[in-house]
Amino acid sequence: MSKYAIGVDFGTESGRALLVDISNGQELATAVYPYANSVIDERLPDNGPRLEPDWALQDPEDYIRTFQNTIPQVLKQSGVSPDDVIGIGIDFTACTMLPTKKDGTPLCLLPEFRAQPHAWVKLWKHHSAQPEADHINDTAESMGETWLARYGGKISSEWFFSKVLQILDEAPEIYKAADRLIEAADWVVWQLTGVETRNSCTAGYKAMWSKAEGFPSKDYFGTLHPMLANVVEEKMSTNILPVGQKAGGLSPQAAAWTGLKAGTAVAIANVDAHVAVPASTVTEPGRMVMIMGTSTCDMVLGTDAQLVPGMCGYVEDGIIPGFFGYEAGQSCVGDHFAWFVENCVPASYQQQAQQRGLDVHALLEEKAAKLNIGESGLLALDWWNGNRSVLVDVDLTGLLIGATLATKPEEIYRALIEATAYGKRIIIETFQENGVPIHELVACGGLPEKNKLVMQIYADVTGLPIKLSGSKQTPALGSAMFGAVAAGRSAGGYDSIFDAAKNMARLKDEMYTPNPESKKAYDKLYREYQILHDYFGRGANDVMKRLKKIKVEARK
Amino acid sequence: MSKYAIGVDFGTESGRALLVDISNGQELATAVYPYANSVIDERLPDNGPRLEPDWALQDPEDYIRTFQNTIPQVLKQSGVSPDDVIGIGIDFTACTMLPTKKDGTPLCLLPEFRAQPHAWVKLWKHHSAQPEADHINDTAESMGETWLARYGGKISSEWFFSKVLQILDEAPEIYKAADRLIEAADWVVWQLTGVETRNSCTAGYKAMWSKAEGFPSKDYFGTLHPMLANVVEEKMSTNILPVGQKAGGLSPQAAAWTGLKAGTAVAIANVDAHVAVPASTVTEPGRMVMIMGTSTCDMVLGTDAQLVPGMCGYVEDGIIPGFFGYEAGQSCVGDHFAWFVENCVPASYQQQAQQRGLDVHALLEEKAAKLNIGESGLLALDWWNGNRSVLVDVDLTGLLIGATLATKPEEIYRALIEATAYGKRIIIETFQENGVPIHELVACGGLPEKNKLVMQIYADVTGLPIKLSGSKQTPALGSAMFGAVAAGRSAGGYDSIFDAAKNMARLKDEMYTPNPESKKAYDKLYREYQILHDYFGRGANDVMKRLKKIKVEARK
Repeated sequence: MSKYAIGVDFGTESGRALLVDISNGQELATAVYPYANSVIDERLPDNGPRLEPDWALQDPEDYIRTFQNTIPQVLKQSGVSPDDVIGIGIDFTACTMLPTKKDGTPLCLLPEFRAQPHAWVKLWKHHSAQPEADHINDTAESMGETWLARYGGKISSEWFFSKVLQILDEAPEIYKAADRLIEAADWVVWQLTGVETRNSCTAGYKAMWSKAEGFPSKDYFGTLHPMLANVVEEKMSTNILPVGQKAGGLSPQAAAWTGLKAGTAVAIANVDAHVAVPASTVTEPGRMVMIMGTSTCDMVLGTDAQLVPGMCGYVEDGIIPGFFGYEAGQSCVGDHFAWFVENCVPASYQQQAQQRGLDVHALLEEKAAKLNIGESGLLALDWWNGNRSVLVDVDLTGLLIGATLATKPEEIYRALIEATAYGKRIIIETFQENGVPIHELVACGGLPEKNKLVMQIYADVTGLPIKLSGSKQTPALGSAMFGAVAAGRSAGGYDSIFDAAKNMARLKDEMYTPNPESKKAYDKLYREYQILHDYFGRGANDVMKRLKKIKVEARK
Repeated sequence: MSKYAIGVDFGTESGRALLVDISNGQELATAVYPYANSVIDERLPDNGPRLEPDWALQDPEDYIRTFQNTIPQVLKQSGVSPDDVIGIGIDFTACTMLPTKKDGTPLCLLPEFRAQPHAWVKLWKHHSAQPEADHINDTAESMGETWLARYGGKISSEWFFSKVLQILDEAPEIYKAADRLIEAADWVVWQLTGVETRNSCTAGYKAMWSKAEGFPSKDYFGTLHPMLANVVEEKMSTNILPVGQKAGGLSPQAAAWTGLKAGTAVAIANVDAHVAVPASTVTEPGRMVMIMGTSTCDMVLGTDAQLVPGMCGYVEDGIIPGFFGYEAGQSCVGDHFAWFVENCVPASYQQQAQQRGLDVHALLEEKAAKLNIGESGLLALDWWNGNRSVLVDVDLTGLLIGATLATKPEEIYRALIEATAYGKRIIIETFQENGVPIHELVACGGLPEKNKLVMQIYADVTGLPIKLSGSKQTPALGSAMFGAVAAGRSAGGYDSIFDAAKNMARLKDEMYTPNPESKKAYDKLYREYQILHDYFGRGANDVMKRLKKIKVEARK
């Protein structure tokens, strides 16, 4: 009798459930719920107040609706009985966080706070807490905080305490009213189980926690802001559970939402990119997993603690137990190409694509693939959404150089792709130069499926072979794998993520191999990228930041 | 009894005739001939050989067809008798030059040379003679040639001897076969009169000639290339006639082409931008004329010789007798916006424009006009077609910085406009700082008519008031004015261009006044432009040139 697990992957614009056969990883059914309120970045729902630039919120009810809509669908599609579903795992974008009452009620659902932007979920790409991130970094540096080095010397405005401190700075009444400040990942597990738990992955990668040292000291938090001194004790938890454990059993209420049996094992929450690593067959060092979508996360395992400048952080046991999990990322990849297609592709190309029954991306890919390396004369800095690694600076912006009156849209498109590949190479070389070996890339996510040109360019620019995850929904598969581990072998699941990966994860047959000639041609362009990267990214000319300041002033 | 003059303006893509009442400048009729072979930049006509990148040729027969098509039309439209047309003037793009036989036959019309690109007319924007320009500049510098300073220390790849030397380097058989190397401006006057003449304007601005010193020495030319030593004596002329003089009378053949009377006075050839100066009412120092079209020429008069770094040159009597005529320019203005509209405006905008019955430029102008200064966060370097002044470097390329995922097409469009305005301010300040005062701008050409936003931005960025030439075809009017001067007062024309300007030229009533607040806001952005301008343009990072080299290699 087969047993099944369900993984639920909470993305930026939708949530997806995947029902998987635990014995072999076969994916039986999937269902997607596009969030009713999507990304809230212009004004609050119900014609609420306008948001400032760089804000990005979400509605927590969309997460509950994801469970309510998708799980019943996958059960129905697959015909699998709820009795045979033994485990659920979830993964989430991070740091996506919200303030709640003691019972888990999000503040934004309370009438008195509904019109207050700070009461809502702050999505990972909420980018207006840079002043707080700067304050956190400066204070940590001047106080000689040891944890700072684990994060490459800089924490990001996207992370947990940057967002917390922004709430405190801009809406102290919300900070006071919040009994809990919590990752949305942990919040949805709380909603499933009725029990509040906190996972080691987001705590480690996004909230400055480590297994060895815990959170930063009260002294440090108090120096940041007097009201923040007891934030951990008052509004969080020091009981951080490692990924791979069970959070609890499904509550009767959640069973009613989903059609699953009450008591079904629910795994400790996890992060989309992190669950994708074992789901891409990677449970050992040397093989970097790239989760490529709107943005890209890069995950690699190491056997020891290394300080790599500008990476997002390393967490012991953060991805796979027994290893140091290293994370880096690029904040603008699929988003970059989507922006280009929406804003910069002329009507004549749209018509051409339509006539040929092609997607515009596919038409551009076809045209761009015909270009020789370097023949456009273009070079870009891929900072349309700031730079996550290795500069860790959301105030950097995009640059295109080399344009002439003969420049064609497909040339710009290819230059944008190449720019993200150069950014990737900077990340890889930074790891390699700092004691974290990488000899192979494994790609998963939507982009590698859709765009062969992107993958070949990445192979040629980095000089590394690229394999592809076998699943079309790798994070959801990874979550299902963690669900199977939460259930345990006795219930028909697995006792470790290594066993789960061996049986449930696979790679595609196809792979991308670097062409040595192309690599050589790209080496020249990469050198130019590096010069511009350092000139604009490391303080020689802070024009991007000054323009951003002028922009903020001009919008007032 | 009214007398009339005809001005013929040879543009980049078409030739235009204008019939004008000499007494008051009233424009009675105009006709345009779009060149059958337009700009030849992909392959020679009749499926001839492919051209390399950066080539731009023309067909001299298009110039003759311009006379044949447009002059009969303006006569017919206006009903003016050929008896009352007393003078013709022409103006041309420059340096646009061709090799011919002794009798004026262009080499490209001879069957044996028809498939040889170097036998055709090299258009002003033919940009592949940079190695030759470098050689000319380096040699001049090392030999201490005094004329180099007149051209801001650098001559351009667009100019006469760069093009001549390219012919000699790449097609010595064409150089040998050419009895004459001549500006197209002088060539069309030769075709009208049957007499070869050379005008002081192109000789001075494009061929290193001056009234005081003549051409560079044989010694210098011989050092450039042994076969070039006698180029002036063998293939040109030292008999350079000042603008404003009469070249001759219309030949019987040209009379037959045009329907005009044989013997009608024909003025010495002139350059489009230069004839536009008196046609914009400017015959005194301090008021810079901007001839704004695909590219922009900036012309200002001075009372003495000043060495202004990076300008295109000054020529005594080159624009208006008795003054030093200073010229500068921007090689990518209208072309810039046209490139953007053709390549970067999405289908949704095209539809919107269509639905509202608007031109896409007009829609973008409307949207861009609503933006506050600086609110896009974008900044561009307007070098999509190289930089003419003050860097004099065709190998510079376009740059856009500050892009984010929220960047909209109208924001880029406005950034491109602003970039050309910053480029203009650099030109103006360079003149002002080097002893050539400028206190007012006068705009003419197609662009000022069409785009009010451009004009207001130029006024705000430069802090100078802008007036507009009264004519929609200022160069053609200017040519007609020189035609009236060639005829002379005794025949019903004028004895000087001052008299012609007083009676025939006028300004529009409307003008653009700088807004002090906007000027202040732009000052900040201009400072950023200056930093990038110098970083990329003055050798700190020659990435643009290196990318261009890589591009040329990649296309081989």
